[in-house]
Amino acid sequence: MSKTKTNLRIIPLGGLGEVGRNMMLLEYGSSILIIDMGFRLPEEDMPGIDYIIPNISCLRGKEKNILGIVFTHGHYDHIGAVPYLIEKIWSPGEAFRQRRTPPGRPNLPIFASPLTRGIILKRQDDFPAQPKLEIQEVKDGTIVKLGPFKIEFFRQNHNIPDNLGLFIETPIGNILHTSDFKFDPAPVNDLPTNFQKLHNFSKRKVLLLLSDSTGAEEEGHSLSEKEISKNLEQIFRMAAGRIIAATFASLINRIQQIISLSEKYGRKVIVEGYSMKTNVEISKILGYVKAEKGTIIKAKEVENYPDSKITILCTGAQGEGSAILMKIAQKEHPFLRFKKSDTVIFSSSVIPGNERTVQILKDDILRQKTKVFHYKMMDIHAGGHAQKEELKEMLKIMKPKFFFPIHGQYSMLVTHGEIAKSLGIPEKDIVIAENGQIINLNQKRNFIEKKTVPSNYVMVDGLGIGDVGEVVLRDRQMLARDGMFVIVAIVDRQTGQVRGSPDIISRGFVYLRESKVLLAQTRKKVIEIVNRAAGSGGAVNWSYTKDEIRNKIGGFLYTKTQRRPMILPVVIEV
Amino acid sequence: MSKTKTNLRIIPLGGLGEVGRNMMLLEYGSSILIIDMGFRLPEEDMPGIDYIIPNISCLRGKEKNILGIVFTHGHYDHIGAVPYLIEKIWSPGEAFRQRRTPPGRPNLPIFASPLTRGIILKRQDDFPAQPKLEIQEVKDGTIVKLGPFKIEFFRQNHNIPDNLGLFIETPIGNILHTSDFKFDPAPVNDLPTNFQKLHNFSKRKVLLLLSDSTGAEEEGHSLSEKEISKNLEQIFRMAAGRIIAATFASLINRIQQIISLSEKYGRKVIVEGYSMKTNVEISKILGYVKAEKGTIIKAKEVENYPDSKITILCTGAQGEGSAILMKIAQKEHPFLRFKKSDTVIFSSSVIPGNERTVQILKDDILRQKTKVFHYKMMDIHAGGHAQKEELKEMLKIMKPKFFFPIHGQYSMLVTHGEIAKSLGIPEKDIVIAENGQIINLNQKRNFIEKKTVPSNYVMVDGLGIGDVGEVVLRDRQMLARDGMFVIVAIVDRQTGQVRGSPDIISRGFVYLRESKVLLAQTRKKVIEIVNRAAGSGGAVNWSYTKDEIRNKIGGFLYTKTQRRPMILPVVIEV
Repeated sequence: MSKTKTNLRIIPLGGLGEVGRNMMLLEYGSSILIIDMGFRLPEEDMPGIDYIIPNISCLRGKEKNILGIVFTHGHYDHIGAVPYLIEKIWSPGEAFRQRRTPPGRPNLPIFASPLTRGIILKRQDDFPAQPKLEIQEVKDGTIVKLGPFKIEFFRQNHNIPDNLGLFIETPIGNILHTSDFKFDPAPVNDLPTNFQKLHNFSKRKVLLLLSDSTGAEEEGHSLSEKEISKNLEQIFRMAAGRIIAATFASLINRIQQIISLSEKYGRKVIVEGYSMKTNVEISKILGYVKAEKGTIIKAKEVENYPDSKITILCTGAQGEGSAILMKIAQKEHPFLRFKKSDTVIFSSSVIPGNERTVQILKDDILRQKTKVFHYKMMDIHAGGHAQKEELKEMLKIMKPKFFFPIHGQYSMLVTHGEIAKSLGIPEKDIVIAENGQIINLNQKRNFIEKKTVPSNYVMVDGLGIGDVGEVVLRDRQMLARDGMFVIVAIVDRQTGQVRGSPDIISRGFVYLRESKVLLAQTRKKVIEIVNRAAGSGGAVNWSYTKDEIRNKIGGFLYTKTQRRPMILPVVIEV
Repeated sequence: MSKTKTNLRIIPLGGLGEVGRNMMLLEYGSSILIIDMGFRLPEEDMPGIDYIIPNISCLRGKEKNILGIVFTHGHYDHIGAVPYLIEKIWSPGEAFRQRRTPPGRPNLPIFASPLTRGIILKRQDDFPAQPKLEIQEVKDGTIVKLGPFKIEFFRQNHNIPDNLGLFIETPIGNILHTSDFKFDPAPVNDLPTNFQKLHNFSKRKVLLLLSDSTGAEEEGHSLSEKEISKNLEQIFRMAAGRIIAATFASLINRIQQIISLSEKYGRKVIVEGYSMKTNVEISKILGYVKAEKGTIIKAKEVENYPDSKITILCTGAQGEGSAILMKIAQKEHPFLRFKKSDTVIFSSSVIPGNERTVQILKDDILRQKTKVFHYKMMDIHAGGHAQKEELKEMLKIMKPKFFFPIHGQYSMLVTHGEIAKSLGIPEKDIVIAENGQIINLNQKRNFIEKKTVPSNYVMVDGLGIGDVGEVVLRDRQMLARDGMFVIVAIVDRQTGQVRGSPDIISRGFVYLRESKVLLAQTRKKVIEIVNRAAGSGGAVNWSYTKDEIRNKIGGFLYTKTQRRPMILPVVIEV
């Protein structure tokens, strides 16, 4: 390792202080390496928003400096922002445009494991306007040299196959990025953690450890998938009728478990739900889901088999309104209905914020007398993230000089930092950072620059990317709370008086048919306000008049209802 | 017990299939006894709604048959609907009006323990238009005879003092209503569960057990408050600076623990937050919170003491936006700011649905370098509800013929029912019911009538009770998702053509300043639609024209944005 005076700069654009939206830049000199490009789901107070993606405006003008993108695994919180962002870092700049040629070579070097690649490319199909991506396959042991960075990919256990950690040699020292991970001595469809390899990295000296913090607040060790299989098998053994197993479409390993158990117990599997079908398809093609010929049958074939020989594998374990499980529960599915003899399995944890929806769905299913198993009753779901003891183990193996907890809510980063402190890493060498901060690092020390780069939420809503900002969101929240109240007054230019009766259009405020008196009183007040303004002689200040309507009618409606609808006055002179 | 051919009818109006809004009627012949009158909080998809209360329309016309109301305890899910409902069951009917006299006697017999009574009456102060309530105090051992019902109140442990279960003698047999309860061998500010008394009730034969199901899905035994005290004390022992303890204002026992520990460690206590202040005040007056003179100080006196001698007891452990903890975290509190040396305690569980808000608050506090303890890290909160083992014990003691699990989500009722089944109660004697159903009961059997009474949500929003229904809510949800888009077109009556350019008022859809092209295109389309309709000669069908605008502009905007704002066309002829 040569000595250098240039600092490595690490710029997290997402994934710190939040779960999801993972994206990080490593910058050395002018060279930039991108790790992951994920999205996250909106908060409850962001109605209408589909996703939140990283703000990459700090890359503007630096596109030509981007050496490439490496993806750790195929979960959307690591790859989901690709269709929204890839073009922006791809297109402009003369030098960069030149690099797109000669044809046949990757436009922008992108690296991912086969399954990750498959999932990214499949998703691109949903965005037909997108450029065709070329992604180079990497696997355990692959070494890629990009400018000052030499990246060695290594296998890490998680709840999706083909998850890769990164060992990165840089001019200032070696960085180990764990990706999302857990240690699993008995995984499904995967090899157990290769501790020997981890120790070998450690022997080569780890200057900086970047480690997944999502499980940092959970005590002990994450459950092994083998345990989960055992418990799931108990359910399979007892079930007399159909088994309806709902999980995340991205939990490829769980999907495999359910397929394997179905085969063991002579059940055919029907796969329902768009994302579930897609993922099973890709994973089967790439060999990450293994099913005997004839195990997976078409939905229509269900009637050829007795209930005791059927498993339905579907989406909707989070109570999502549009997913299959909810459709069956609400009797809106084209042909599936719950029966008393069914057994429903919720094989996933509940994402914080979804607890109520899942409870309501569970209740709806129970009302149909169906049996329900969920992860709180039995260990039929294991998280994909290392818990306290595993995180300790990782730290103990790597013995890094610097430690930078990544991926997680602020409280998780803090807790992970405390774990490191308890193992003897000095506080000054532990980096608890925020998105948009610039962490400088050399062999000796680390510091966070005062300057930050923009890292605010970029919201995706329909076709709009970033066009829904604070103003639109605040309006949506206000509209949601007390509705809106539009007042249209036509004023005669000659007389300065309101013509006829003002129109009122209101939604979400009160039930209009039952509020005739209130509306009549309001109209009268509007006429008074407008006539007073116009009748004062001279030029009418319509903007002032509108403010008057907004304030006075707002106050009046509040007195009558204690609600504050959004008041929108329209005054038109004719 | 005399034999009778009349069935007892039990009508739950709330509290089944939900947590909160507890209210139940016992009807024998024409006589009606009301147990509790609570509210619940709205779901996430009910923006703007303050509370949900029971629908009591089935009592209309039967007011004179109401013998009285008994309240089990002072939590809002058992008393919160009083100010909204009490007048309705109180007023009409000649016979009933006569019963209001002679003065000096209760208008409508209401029974509650001293603390419950204090909380109900204090809350009535917030509703000055309400009639003055007279509430008769009852306590452990009090027997009240109301028509065919003889009610004996008995002490039950919960997390508020003065909680009373009901043993009710009826002509068909004895009913035991547990109220919310847990078995606590070492409670705070309360006596341990009186098992002897429970056994005595059992000896008198329990025909029907109505038992709290809120904790039915939790394994084992609820934690004793003594355990909680021990853990809280650890925090008190370690804390170098101020302790900021947030909990529910209704957790009177927890409040006592924090006050007692403060006294033990020489700390003065500042009480912050309206509901917290109110509850501490009532409880102190009635002797349910005990504090030495000088322990509780005024907020302004805080500066007279070093940080190590201060406890701040406040609201906001659920991340409520308007509560004290959030105000301090967001630097909006008039004088309190977090310091690095502070210790913040979240001493309450997280209500399902609030997980995200609590996480965000916790992160905000941690960013200010303050220490945070929450119930997931340490047992510093115990639920108030009996868990599986306690529920079993209650069933074993009572040995009821019929079992009717109450208070809880449907899944909790089902689980509680299964517990009873596992103890040998036949399925046919277990009543899993829904709000609004009428459960008939005699010595021999129970059945649910086909007919139900209305039990839908009655929503309270500001001054409106029940005026926000499905329509208004659906509009709010739609407005929240994609905003609204009002189009005002003025049409010249003579020419039938649009005058000038249509006005567009939109909020929550797109940021208008950045959407000028879209708006111009929309205006053009509106003019085309209106002119075509009006130009066709003959009378114009404005309603059809408006539909055209709604559909065509809706489609156009969706193509451009993939959003569906609520489109509201206004066409005015001048």
